[in-house]
Amino acid sequence: MNKIIKEKSRDNVIKLHKALEQSLHDVDKEIIIRLDKSIPLINDIGKHLIKASGKRLRPLLTLAMAAQFNDYSKNPKILAAAVEFIHTATLLHDDVVDESYLRRGKKTANMIWGNEFSVLAGDFLFAQSFELMVETGSIKALSCLATASCKITQGEFQQMQISNKPDTSIEKYFEVIGKKTAELFAASCESGVIVASGNVKQQKAAYNYGYNLGLAFQIVDDLMDFNNNSNKMGKNLGDDFKLGKVTLPIILAWKKSNSSERKFWVKTIKELKQETSDFSQALTILNKYNIFDECKNKAQEFISIAQQALFKLPNTKFKEYLFGLADESIERSK
Amino acid sequence: MNKIIKEKSRDNVIKLHKALEQSLHDVDKEIIIRLDKSIPLINDIGKHLIKASGKRLRPLLTLAMAAQFNDYSKNPKILAAAVEFIHTATLLHDDVVDESYLRRGKKTANMIWGNEFSVLAGDFLFAQSFELMVETGSIKALSCLATASCKITQGEFQQMQISNKPDTSIEKYFEVIGKKTAELFAASCESGVIVASGNVKQQKAAYNYGYNLGLAFQIVDDLMDFNNNSNKMGKNLGDDFKLGKVTLPIILAWKKSNSSERKFWVKTIKELKQETSDFSQALTILNKYNIFDECKNKAQEFISIAQQALFKLPNTKFKEYLFGLADESIERSK
Repeated sequence: MNKIIKEKSRDNVIKLHKALEQSLHDVDKEIIIRLDKSIPLINDIGKHLIKASGKRLRPLLTLAMAAQFNDYSKNPKILAAAVEFIHTATLLHDDVVDESYLRRGKKTANMIWGNEFSVLAGDFLFAQSFELMVETGSIKALSCLATASCKITQGEFQQMQISNKPDTSIEKYFEVIGKKTAELFAASCESGVIVASGNVKQQKAAYNYGYNLGLAFQIVDDLMDFNNNSNKMGKNLGDDFKLGKVTLPIILAWKKSNSSERKFWVKTIKELKQETSDFSQALTILNKYNIFDECKNKAQEFISIAQQALFKLPNTKFKEYLFGLADESIERSK
Repeated sequence: MNKIIKEKSRDNVIKLHKALEQSLHDVDKEIIIRLDKSIPLINDIGKHLIKASGKRLRPLLTLAMAAQFNDYSKNPKILAAAVEFIHTATLLHDDVVDESYLRRGKKTANMIWGNEFSVLAGDFLFAQSFELMVETGSIKALSCLATASCKITQGEFQQMQISNKPDTSIEKYFEVIGKKTAELFAASCESGVIVASGNVKQQKAAYNYGYNLGLAFQIVDDLMDFNNNSNKMGKNLGDDFKLGKVTLPIILAWKKSNSSERKFWVKTIKELKQETSDFSQALTILNKYNIFDECKNKAQEFISIAQQALFKLPNTKFKEYLFGLADESIERSK
């Protein structure tokens, strides 16, 4: 472990994908089987989303956590599919709530099929995720993912409530992204350890790893709205800004802004009166106060906590990869 | 039991409410506690719905089924609250999908708070229902309600697909209302027997009672769109007709209609080209072919099957009430 701390390893997500190739393949198969069992339109929407899906990060976490206990059996795979269904369901409903047009560079489901189908498809995937979880027979894993599902919705609500409020506190922001994003990362990890029969301390450690990784992940995601050179996510620069979403860069900048800069934030974020040049003006203010570095430092703090949590888990190659994966999550923004 | 078959008893819903008064009170308390634990806006929406709620029919079924096994403990109450949450979540999302303005005579949540909050509040209640179920520790009850939740969504999808198609088959209609409505009635009953430790035959009997009661209930509900003297549900006459929803009266009328009447259904239901006088013209056709009686006879068939299913359950006063409740479900339309 110490070796890993000294020199950063590379390509850990790829290494994890490779080490868990067969399991991930089985998860995909499980997902397709469940969608095929549904009615045609849900199947279409489901497959559109699964195809559009990125790195399968959350199922990967579930599988990797179980693999640390040498469990490559059906249960972690079923849970991994359930986790992906929950995540996809929240994306579908998010896009309805935000009236989004694009996600990961592709048209959103609500734009193709309409809001009503997106609402129902999300409901189906969510219900299906619980049918999957039931199959593991683990009430504890179910409980952990049911709680996360509740918190995600609470986080989405709270995110709407802080929208257009540039004077939101940092604590509130962390509470919101904790619920909205970090809880599912945490439950993806914890439930993997639960079904692989890790003890309570190890379950808690997995939760802490996932939770702090999730916080870092969301901070970086929010940062990329302002500073996304490669546009890997297919998200357009300035999408959040245009909607008046209040994220860490805005919150930190607001605190440091002088009175004319605060007027600018009120006009653009609170009142949503934006002109074409406003986004570049926002970047100027963020650069003036070195906000990007401050955000990255905050993400780095959470990554270090996540990595610390791993010490309580068995020493396996998977632990090394999970350690490195945490570092890589911040590199997306560089 | 034979005595009940000979002479129809009255006020069985009221008798059930009275016999289960304390349990229903505990269910309401459980619901309020869960809502209070959430964030304020979800609490507001939840309480709006709970207040607007009608007879608490589904939780009543869960409690009554468990009471047949003398189980008045916490588990059936928790399940009953979960069932009400699932039902309320589907109503919230239905209203978004249908763009409804009124439900049970009150403004719908989507009209008061907007679609985005209705989507999220539905998600919260749904996730919360699974947190509740987890507390019973019964994987089997969870499985039964998770399956019902999946089917509800499939039914909603299929309902959209038969919309504006007056030539839909009766079988398709029964499949749709089976999934959309009857499955949750069935699972409300079955899960009550599961947690009260009824045997598999009794669980199946409870499912059959609920399923057939649910079919009858939906037929009557659909009928009341055309023939609702008292307007007890707060639903306006002709709401389904205006949306081009295809329900049993339309399907049966279509089969019997002559070519000029079919042109009328195509214009009003398929093409949604409706004039003010069209609803009364629809009623004229329905009356000409005695469609209301035909619908009631169909509902009566399902009620008889539901009542037959009760024979496999213990002989208690609750069974008598459930028997009578089935008869009462058709009386709503008289």
